[in-house]
Amino acid sequence: MRAAIYQEAGRVEVHEVPDPRILEPTDAIVRVVRACICGSDLWAYRGVIQRPAGSRLGHEFIGVVEERGAEVRGVGVGDFVVAPFQWSDGSCPACRDGIHTACVHGGTFGAAGTDGGQGELVRVPQADGTLVAVPGGAAAVGPELYPALLALSDVAATGLHGAVLAGVREGSTVAVVGDGAVGLSAVLGAHTVLGAERVILVSSHEDRAALGRALGATDVVSARGEEGVEAVLAMTEGLGVRHVVEAVGTPSSWAMCIGMARVGGSVGAVGVPHTAPQLALFPVLRKHLSIALGIAPVRRYLPDLVARVTAGWTAPGRVFDLELPLEEVADGYRAMAERRSIKTMLAA
Amino acid sequence: MRAAIYQEAGRVEVHEVPDPRILEPTDAIVRVVRACICGSDLWAYRGVIQRPAGSRLGHEFIGVVEERGAEVRGVGVGDFVVAPFQWSDGSCPACRDGIHTACVHGGTFGAAGTDGGQGELVRVPQADGTLVAVPGGAAAVGPELYPALLALSDVAATGLHGAVLAGVREGSTVAVVGDGAVGLSAVLGAHTVLGAERVILVSSHEDRAALGRALGATDVVSARGEEGVEAVLAMTEGLGVRHVVEAVGTPSSWAMCIGMARVGGSVGAVGVPHTAPQLALFPVLRKHLSIALGIAPVRRYLPDLVARVTAGWTAPGRVFDLELPLEEVADGYRAMAERRSIKTMLAA
Repeated sequence: MRAAIYQEAGRVEVHEVPDPRILEPTDAIVRVVRACICGSDLWAYRGVIQRPAGSRLGHEFIGVVEERGAEVRGVGVGDFVVAPFQWSDGSCPACRDGIHTACVHGGTFGAAGTDGGQGELVRVPQADGTLVAVPGGAAAVGPELYPALLALSDVAATGLHGAVLAGVREGSTVAVVGDGAVGLSAVLGAHTVLGAERVILVSSHEDRAALGRALGATDVVSARGEEGVEAVLAMTEGLGVRHVVEAVGTPSSWAMCIGMARVGGSVGAVGVPHTAPQLALFPVLRKHLSIALGIAPVRRYLPDLVARVTAGWTAPGRVFDLELPLEEVADGYRAMAERRSIKTMLAA
Repeated sequence: MRAAIYQEAGRVEVHEVPDPRILEPTDAIVRVVRACICGSDLWAYRGVIQRPAGSRLGHEFIGVVEERGAEVRGVGVGDFVVAPFQWSDGSCPACRDGIHTACVHGGTFGAAGTDGGQGELVRVPQADGTLVAVPGGAAAVGPELYPALLALSDVAATGLHGAVLAGVREGSTVAVVGDGAVGLSAVLGAHTVLGAERVILVSSHEDRAALGRALGATDVVSARGEEGVEAVLAMTEGLGVRHVVEAVGTPSSWAMCIGMARVGGSVGAVGVPHTAPQLALFPVLRKHLSIALGIAPVRRYLPDLVARVTAGWTAPGRVFDLELPLEEVADGYRAMAERRSIKTMLAA
């Protein structure tokens, strides 16, 4: 099969690699229909983190089950499935708590020794605990649903998780710091899934802000840093917001979140830092804040989100603004690295 | 009147100072019946932080209202009252949210220019938003209730708040890191007020551990650091606890809390750090933790806790193991600094 291979910073190529095969009775083989490139894929591409030369890439994909191991019961050959970016057994204590990304038998697609989503086929370990089949099978899923279903694989659920961690509920006022695909998806999740009344998006890019408004943002703050914080305070009678989603992961975005949070508020953070930031606790203490972090357990949200998409909810797919064939994956990395694309979809 | 005065590190003296008088129509003057010494009073005493020479001391007291300003309605002359360690107006957005320690008109007793609890009389600003009267007036409050009522002024409510921040509920398993008066009070609050089923106290002092058991601890871990974490994990099938109360405030106690928290768990922190510790976010992210900090809004809890005490709940007062007259306050500081006393009560 063909698959995207990481060569070195700035260089991603498509090569012929061996087809995956069932290794464990709990595996399934999925033929990828659509995959995409994640902001986190860019860290190695930009040389910020090391990644082994020759490793596979991509952890977001949708596709059709082509083969399943002897113990797989939950999905069958021919099922159209959405894969969360990590696999999980669905039965360990963490999975039972809905924190599938802490599964004792879990792992991330594209990690050393695994298949990545940016390829034609993927061996999915723990298929029953991982894959969610779209009702009706492959025949029921037209290409018009691909973008939204693919977005559920990571960013839609990750953004939603940020809003959940921030305690957003029906009627909440929430601020989202970050206008990448995750931040925009947090706007959508807060507005549409959780019912927030007021969603303030911090975005200094006009096109992303416009998309944010289309996804549910009621207000946009274009200033950053102290000035951005002041703008949010000015919108909220000087009090700040009870719920803040941190969707960047840098010290400066954290400072904005702490600054705009209302006394007693909550910050939900899903911006996965590629460094290990330190948070000064004293400002958190002074403002009586709750800070919740976590790599989103996408699997927890998938059944509900898949049902919403098959019922016609296409909005999650709007984060994709470029579609390329797998063979042109390098162009996708370039477009995202140069911020010409919010998120690039790949057709296998 | 007589009042304890901070002179320099290691030196606290009782001196004659002017009687306080009503300065604002919202003030009340309270004649102190009992006061006490706080762990946080020791920071200056030990020279860890600076404190102005000549400043008053103490922020925990119970007493009788001797005079009230023209606008005070909630408490009357002769009322027996419990004072939280900070005053609050009871009406600002933070107070309405139950976060009285973030009141825009708030302040701490014993801060520069205010009276401290360790004296004969205290001017209480914002009396209506601050003081809670014991039903029945002074005549209804016998000396047998003094220790418990005085404990409500800070540690009983602060410990309870830690457990609340950690999300403790009926049936919870919670670990408390810290066996000072706040940690012990967290054990009591988690067990008796919130109904935790299993309360693991981390304590390496036999006498404090014994008191912890009397207050509701079902398990005691005497090891510290990594070894203490391992002990808690061993008690919980390797999973850790869903709720952890941080009642120390040092980097090493934080490390224990993060280490023993179960994936998806919550850490509630009321150990007020005298430095400004930094928390590494990556371990918090990996374990999907929520971290909540706050200087306890004692006033929120007082009506309920006062009612419990007047109904016979004397346990909060058990943290006091030394009682001295105000004139011997210096001995109290020495006893607490040398850890010969968990908490010292002062009779005015």
